[in-house]
Amino acid sequence: MCEHCGCQDRKKEIELERHILSHNEEIAARNREHFRKKGIKVLNLISAPGSGKTSLLEATIDALKDKIPLAVIEGDPETERDAERIRKKGVPVVQVTTGGACHLDALQVHRAFHQLEGNHFKLLFIENVGNLLCPSAFDLGEDLRVVLVSVPEGSDKPAKYPAAFFKAQVFLITKIDLLPYFDFDLEETRELALKINPQIKILPISSKTGEGLEEWLKLIEGLVSA
Amino acid sequence: MCEHCGCQDRKKEIELERHILSHNEEIAARNREHFRKKGIKVLNLISAPGSGKTSLLEATIDALKDKIPLAVIEGDPETERDAERIRKKGVPVVQVTTGGACHLDALQVHRAFHQLEGNHFKLLFIENVGNLLCPSAFDLGEDLRVVLVSVPEGSDKPAKYPAAFFKAQVFLITKIDLLPYFDFDLEETRELALKINPQIKILPISSKTGEGLEEWLKLIEGLVSA
Repeated sequence: MCEHCGCQDRKKEIELERHILSHNEEIAARNREHFRKKGIKVLNLISAPGSGKTSLLEATIDALKDKIPLAVIEGDPETERDAERIRKKGVPVVQVTTGGACHLDALQVHRAFHQLEGNHFKLLFIENVGNLLCPSAFDLGEDLRVVLVSVPEGSDKPAKYPAAFFKAQVFLITKIDLLPYFDFDLEETRELALKINPQIKILPISSKTGEGLEEWLKLIEGLVSA
Repeated sequence: MCEHCGCQDRKKEIELERHILSHNEEIAARNREHFRKKGIKVLNLISAPGSGKTSLLEATIDALKDKIPLAVIEGDPETERDAERIRKKGVPVVQVTTGGACHLDALQVHRAFHQLEGNHFKLLFIENVGNLLCPSAFDLGEDLRVVLVSVPEGSDKPAKYPAAFFKAQVFLITKIDLLPYFDFDLEETRELALKINPQIKILPISSKTGEGLEEWLKLIEGLVSA
């Protein structure tokens, strides 16, 4: 009897999960080495659906594309919608549709990266599937993991979804232009996130008004020139 | 070689997933029979984090608790925060923390239901883990599955997350008091959802202003008296 479902398979399930994760880590390590050799810096953006990942990318591309050659990998359960939005900005983009799966894995990124071959870029943004849980477990080989929570989602999110914050280097509090309309406690969110990860860098930002964007861009430019 | 990860385990993984899902369905069927015998109607609320499930429950409890005895099961990856909010309303509540797992399963609901024993209620709300993907695959034995998307998340969500809409009977578009501040296309969202599920009942609603709440309450009262 297993604690999970009264059947014999929980142990097998855990073993398989471990295998999948360790296999993913091997591929992620290869991705990282591959990116390093090519001199490409990679960001993995993780958030719930609708936290503003694509809007942030659009604003970031507008500000950076004439300075730093860049490309984007878009992850979604279905549709090419996000890739279409990015394509309009004139940068190379590959859409990975996971067919309902709740995260990107390192092999999908490896394959998408090969589809980008022939394009010259020094900076790669990976927009993960909209999900604040599953993507946290899967290293993609990125240099910087960025977690986003938007003001409408509520300031309690770091406490409820700690794994996403534990492994991220940057926490963007997005849509801060909406602070007047929501009962969102910036200080609470900061404290909750720092309790999980004292090293995490926290930036409040609005892709709409541009507030906080400068610091975000500086952070990326610093990464690229490092 | 498997298409997923270049290893031999994809077949095993699929088999195990199938086993877990079919085992879950057995337990869900038992839950459903159990609820039916006790004369309890059950709703399963599914959405991304921060779509307003708990706020909707608070407004619903305020409106119904003197008419219909009710109880709540709260699902979260971590913390008792949502259960505490519901407890303040004076209704029985059990918090299930999944330890990071991305959905509730039927066995967790079965166990939580037993923890509610000794309380008299005719209506049970299950607030699933904040995730628009994984919970869709797990029947909990509910009578009504309700999917929520809030205005700040964007009107494209049914296209990107079709599984959540395919199996739901009700689609609540929440936080409609925010429509003036967002580029959210109500008609687009309706059309996208109906394309996936022509039978889905769509209700725009605001827990804050009470707009649309009456129709939602009528729907629940209809279910309870059926």
